[in-house]
Amino acid sequence: MTPDPGLASWLQLTLTPGLGAATIRQLLSQFGLPENVLAARRAELARFASAEALQALESAAVAQAVERALAWLEQPGHSLVTLADAAYPRMLLETADPPPLLYCRGKTELLNRPALAVVGSRNATAQGAGNAEQFALNFSAAGLTIVSGLAQGIDAAAHRGALAARGSTIAVMGTGVDLAYPRSNAALAEDIAARGLLISEFALGTQAFAHNFPRRNRLISGLAQGCLVIEAALASGSLITARSAAEQGRDVFAVPGSIHSPLSKGCHALIKTGAKLVESAGFASTRAPAGAAADAGADEPLLACMGFDPVDVDSLCARAGLPAERVSAELLRLELAGRIAVLPGGLYQRLN
Amino acid sequence: MTPDPGLASWLQLTLTPGLGAATIRQLLSQFGLPENVLAARRAELARFASAEALQALESAAVAQAVERALAWLEQPGHSLVTLADAAYPRMLLETADPPPLLYCRGKTELLNRPALAVVGSRNATAQGAGNAEQFALNFSAAGLTIVSGLAQGIDAAAHRGALAARGSTIAVMGTGVDLAYPRSNAALAEDIAARGLLISEFALGTQAFAHNFPRRNRLISGLAQGCLVIEAALASGSLITARSAAEQGRDVFAVPGSIHSPLSKGCHALIKTGAKLVESAGFASTRAPAGAAADAGADEPLLACMGFDPVDVDSLCARAGLPAERVSAELLRLELAGRIAVLPGGLYQRLN
Repeated sequence: MTPDPGLASWLQLTLTPGLGAATIRQLLSQFGLPENVLAARRAELARFASAEALQALESAAVAQAVERALAWLEQPGHSLVTLADAAYPRMLLETADPPPLLYCRGKTELLNRPALAVVGSRNATAQGAGNAEQFALNFSAAGLTIVSGLAQGIDAAAHRGALAARGSTIAVMGTGVDLAYPRSNAALAEDIAARGLLISEFALGTQAFAHNFPRRNRLISGLAQGCLVIEAALASGSLITARSAAEQGRDVFAVPGSIHSPLSKGCHALIKTGAKLVESAGFASTRAPAGAAADAGADEPLLACMGFDPVDVDSLCARAGLPAERVSAELLRLELAGRIAVLPGGLYQRLN
Repeated sequence: MTPDPGLASWLQLTLTPGLGAATIRQLLSQFGLPENVLAARRAELARFASAEALQALESAAVAQAVERALAWLEQPGHSLVTLADAAYPRMLLETADPPPLLYCRGKTELLNRPALAVVGSRNATAQGAGNAEQFALNFSAAGLTIVSGLAQGIDAAAHRGALAARGSTIAVMGTGVDLAYPRSNAALAEDIAARGLLISEFALGTQAFAHNFPRRNRLISGLAQGCLVIEAALASGSLITARSAAEQGRDVFAVPGSIHSPLSKGCHALIKTGAKLVESAGFASTRAPAGAAADAGADEPLLACMGFDPVDVDSLCARAGLPAERVSAELLRLELAGRIAVLPGGLYQRLN
């Protein structure tokens, strides 16, 4: 793929220290394309940018960074999407602060598909992560692209759920798109680059700076029609994403949970202030594609026999018409799969 | 206590088959007190009531029922509260269908105190019953009277919680107030009669008829400023009470829970349609009176060491500075008290 020669100009502008996204958008609206900005007299540019920034614009350091980015761009699956590009996400154009340039690895066609942001705690409970994965799977199967932040916990589970269905998922990174952050999700990031899309507005090589993550969160919410918070503590980055979603005019959804779980308190706070309570993907009849069926299928005959009340093995044998040994083995498998809970007194209860 | 001689007339009207509450209120608004109704010419009454009802009004059966009620009334703690009585609940007067007469056992002064209805499933989970009891305890301690229906599950837990605090609780029965229904709550009913208030609009001896319970539910909601649903399935009598509360202009509150619990689905449905999500009694610093402290106190040093993440015994010993034997014994006690959950792999997790 031969890169658009104009991309060098986009890179030069966006890689210059002191030229922020807002300044660059001002310059573009004044002069047109980046080539025109760069061709303008420096005295004209001085109305918009500091002398230091204009000096940096011509520096060897910026020129080298541009070369590195162009070299990165030649690798398979890598691309840059600019504000002037038809592939640029229309949803972001509606927001207050669209980044001039997106570094992309994977399927940029996902940038303009109907999308749902699915976010939540890095320290998710097993139940919360399971919910995130199941919701993402169902929504992906139903045609939505799942946008999240590649963090541990809910984010990773949401990406995994989407990959288990159509693979339609976008991970918005808070570092350069060439870094593996968090390292524990490096393999997941490669899966997403191969079947979905990894993006970042930050320059290649940008490390994980705390102040970049709220900026990243506004892209997560901005790319999607709605934002679903699965689990979140009261002081949680997910609530920043949800607030950003609300400010961008997106629908905010939250999953309730036990009033004793600190990781439900953020969701409950959102519901109290107007977020929509979400209980299910609302696609009970949706069948996941092969490969995801083990997790997604609700067609477990023994579960169907169980109902949701606690039940003992003998009753289950009678209901299912199966010998005790077979039922016990099935119960163990279902317990390991997290589908049932074992209660005191030899009782079993279906969980979902 | 010498009963008001006018009570015989109230009883005669309300015990007559075919004279419903609406007819009786019509008669009272036309003629004044029950004595005046009874003194009126039958031809005048015939505009409001059927010939059969007017015949029954003078029957020996009704006269005997009146005598039985007057005999019941002479026993300690028994009373009748009529629409004309200052003790009649003002909140009920605001509703569409206030019963002309209430049979009472206990403290009728509770009828005009600020009250909260606390209702929910008969098949409550342990967690749901615990929530009901804790909420009722905290709200009672804060001065609210807890109104419920003496059913198993959430109702019983709510009454118990209120009894553990100030005792300010009203049980509205769907049978005659002289019956023990449900039988499993007979002892609880006696406690409520002794320290709170048992009431019914139904004649003494009225058995449990299914059609009387929705009528009873409208009294539960009508007596209170708000209605809190703790746990409820989608097809639940508690949702009837909540709808009745909304129709009566009362606030409806609901406690969220796991999206996988069928007993949270009713609450979630209420929240989706406007009920306020409730997470806590909002009185974290309220201390229950002595006697209830064991359940209510949050001052367990080991729990404070646990945090809310799963933890193993060794880590707990190190954090608490206690020997393993002592920690293990404490963990068993906390498990029996329902304060912690035991997870696979020898991990413990604080529940509340």
